[in-house]
Amino acid sequence: MRNLTMMTDLYQLTMMYGYYKHGMKDNIAVFDLFYRQNRDNCAYSVMAGTESAIEYINNLRFTDDDIEYLCSLNLFGEDFLEMLRGFRFTGSIYGMKEGTIVFPREPLLRVEAPIIEAQLVETALLTLVNHQTLIATKANRVCYAANGGQVLEFGLRRAQGADAGIYGARAAMVGGCVATSNVIAGKWFDIPVKGTHAHSWVMSFPTELDAFRAYADVFPDSCMFLVDTYDTIRSGIPNAIKVFDELRAKGYEPVGIRLDSGDLAYLSKKAREMLDDAGYENAKIFVSGDLDERVIYDLRTQGACIDVYGVGTKLITSSDQPALGGVYKMSCEIVDGVEIPKMKLSDNPAKTTLPGKKKVLRLYNKSHKAIADLIALDSEKIESGKELKLFHPEQTYKSMTVRDFTVRDLLVPLFIDGKQVYELPTLTEIQEYARSEMDTLWPESKRLLNPHEYKVDISDRLYDLRKRLTWELANQNRT
Amino acid sequence: MRNLTMMTDLYQLTMMYGYYKHGMKDNIAVFDLFYRQNRDNCAYSVMAGTESAIEYINNLRFTDDDIEYLCSLNLFGEDFLEMLRGFRFTGSIYGMKEGTIVFPREPLLRVEAPIIEAQLVETALLTLVNHQTLIATKANRVCYAANGGQVLEFGLRRAQGADAGIYGARAAMVGGCVATSNVIAGKWFDIPVKGTHAHSWVMSFPTELDAFRAYADVFPDSCMFLVDTYDTIRSGIPNAIKVFDELRAKGYEPVGIRLDSGDLAYLSKKAREMLDDAGYENAKIFVSGDLDERVIYDLRTQGACIDVYGVGTKLITSSDQPALGGVYKMSCEIVDGVEIPKMKLSDNPAKTTLPGKKKVLRLYNKSHKAIADLIALDSEKIESGKELKLFHPEQTYKSMTVRDFTVRDLLVPLFIDGKQVYELPTLTEIQEYARSEMDTLWPESKRLLNPHEYKVDISDRLYDLRKRLTWELANQNRT
Repeated sequence: MRNLTMMTDLYQLTMMYGYYKHGMKDNIAVFDLFYRQNRDNCAYSVMAGTESAIEYINNLRFTDDDIEYLCSLNLFGEDFLEMLRGFRFTGSIYGMKEGTIVFPREPLLRVEAPIIEAQLVETALLTLVNHQTLIATKANRVCYAANGGQVLEFGLRRAQGADAGIYGARAAMVGGCVATSNVIAGKWFDIPVKGTHAHSWVMSFPTELDAFRAYADVFPDSCMFLVDTYDTIRSGIPNAIKVFDELRAKGYEPVGIRLDSGDLAYLSKKAREMLDDAGYENAKIFVSGDLDERVIYDLRTQGACIDVYGVGTKLITSSDQPALGGVYKMSCEIVDGVEIPKMKLSDNPAKTTLPGKKKVLRLYNKSHKAIADLIALDSEKIESGKELKLFHPEQTYKSMTVRDFTVRDLLVPLFIDGKQVYELPTLTEIQEYARSEMDTLWPESKRLLNPHEYKVDISDRLYDLRKRLTWELANQNRT
Repeated sequence: MRNLTMMTDLYQLTMMYGYYKHGMKDNIAVFDLFYRQNRDNCAYSVMAGTESAIEYINNLRFTDDDIEYLCSLNLFGEDFLEMLRGFRFTGSIYGMKEGTIVFPREPLLRVEAPIIEAQLVETALLTLVNHQTLIATKANRVCYAANGGQVLEFGLRRAQGADAGIYGARAAMVGGCVATSNVIAGKWFDIPVKGTHAHSWVMSFPTELDAFRAYADVFPDSCMFLVDTYDTIRSGIPNAIKVFDELRAKGYEPVGIRLDSGDLAYLSKKAREMLDDAGYENAKIFVSGDLDERVIYDLRTQGACIDVYGVGTKLITSSDQPALGGVYKMSCEIVDGVEIPKMKLSDNPAKTTLPGKKKVLRLYNKSHKAIADLIALDSEKIESGKELKLFHPEQTYKSMTVRDFTVRDLLVPLFIDGKQVYELPTLTEIQEYARSEMDTLWPESKRLLNPHEYKVDISDRLYDLRKRLTWELANQNRT
């Protein structure tokens, strides 16, 4: 990954300079990176971006060029810029593993560092985690809708720039896709790559039949023909079958056909019938063209005969909600080892933050289904097995008592005192973990329409702390 | 820019190999990059991405690493991979200058090259132009709504990855923004950068007043205070005014205040009143928080007192339409100097393409307002001044006759025979050009709701060619 040290908002640097000038640069601050709301009709998100965040932190350093540019802004003193030359991240970061099912207000990353370090990294950490979590979650929805049908990520050309395409392809794999069309993502992340030919291939030959034959000449054992260049039913499929016959005569089995336009429900059934009648029951039907989880779900309910879905624009941009909206808020300062909890009130109550250094606990029942999450202060002890009463964080009259549960602390150490302590899993391991995470959710929380809301409580001590601080801040700052 | 040679879809490489094996790799093909539909309630788009496209082409080469990876896929022969080692772009590209007002179906780029080259570059050209044109257009709409109020681009943390943030910031400038918060974009593209402090700054001090004072100590001549950390009216603005008074006593003038939550219409008016009453008529009011062109237009009609808009998530993701949907279609092959027009029919008539090597002409009246565009064959001569009858490309009974017009050819040469011939303008020059482009549009085509559709005709010869090919293809490919 590139050095993205300068990928930050200017106000991070002006604040850093301010802290520096006031002798506060080494004050330890704790920040939570979290999001406030799930996407519509989705009860959770799928964490992604942890690996990118770690690489970003490891690459943090200002080049001479960077310092020169910052100097040219005429905002910063020489002494500060000199200090930036030796700038490294020396703090600690706890984070969710990629593939973890996460919920609103839970810290996805918790950064504890000298305030100038914690501040500098805010923007990039948000950019990376917001983007990749967004796409992993969207891919999760699409794959859920496909219900076992394979989903390929095909969106590079519609991605919001190179990184969106490349890291988006990786995030799509975290969310459940099985392959990508994106060669550079395949190379970087060891993702299976797929693809055969486009309309332009067909148009480059005198006839469609010539084009299919020419493709079969070169790739006899991986023929997946795109059949909608001229007329799917009257030209594309019959020509494909003709070449399939020729291949079979030479001892090759075709892979299948791809439909990229028209009424996919009708065409896929018709195609299945034509392929079956011609003796190609194993030929796969691959469809593409503006698919998303709703279209796929709808195709399935119509009995469409589809084996593989190629999903492009709507996955790679998460088109129905193209930003996660994650934020990064200070939760406490640590002065002489003592935590001073911090909180933002805001004129929008929904933007009020949770104070204090926190952890996220997931409670499981005996069959390892997730019962609820508990956001607690890091210093609290919640032991497995004991009886625990959970309250709804806003409507506190709603409560439930859990017994016989096991507890998992979701935040794992990524960096301790500037040193990476987390060993990066392979993408395959992440995918396996992501699948196991889905198994811990009840089906009611997974459905595509009006999913059951998963319970995320805050501990009694956190509840009390928030209440006390709200009053203190509201009074002390009014004139 | 990085080497993005491998940022392509696998099928480009399988097709390249296919052409190579069939001895067709040097056949010259012409491809058009165009989009099919404007964003909702927008009659045009603003071209961007030309510079990135040029850099991408100049950097095209496969590294040893790339070749090794491609070899590992077990799809390609040794000879082909050897050839890729020496791969360079040797073709010609004509394109729209950044900042040009463009319309559906007009070639934004026209690539003429040996087919394996033209095919390889499809994906990346689409990624770059789709993304940047999308964001430039969205920014254009936001700036239009601000009606002279300054718009700053603040979206990096919500961008879809690093490139989306960085190149998005640049595209936003093409669209009319005046500055960005994004430091790396500022450095790379010489964009003015802006920013002061966040809520965390305020929370790092015992009180809001302490925080403002501390900021004023360090940046006495650029104080723009964020006033909504605790309570905008009762705490933020009064504290800001207190520090403004202290600054003025020392001979400094404050810049203003920033509102980031709550009812911006009400709060901005109230803030204006409080600032004016305190003698700070020149202090600017800067607002941010989920803004887009609709919110800004609405704030203005409510008489909100806002000088500067900070626009983040919805601009940097073009949230209401997060992909442009541009495509890249073969329009002809050139065999022994003879053009063989090509066309894709498709089961969706809207996806049928325009055949032949084409140019885009813009017709202006005497006061340099754009009358209409004409997509014509490249070989056609349309002279300024003569009488010209234009037809609606679908409803051909609609026509208009233009006289006394001047003509501009919108596609300019970027590469000729592999050599860059276009001199890159500065971003400032592009911004100026983009503004002049807007001046050529009638107000009716610019409005935010139901804008007047701009006329884009196709020439009579192109119309006839399309008609002839439609019949030929429909018949020849049906079995």
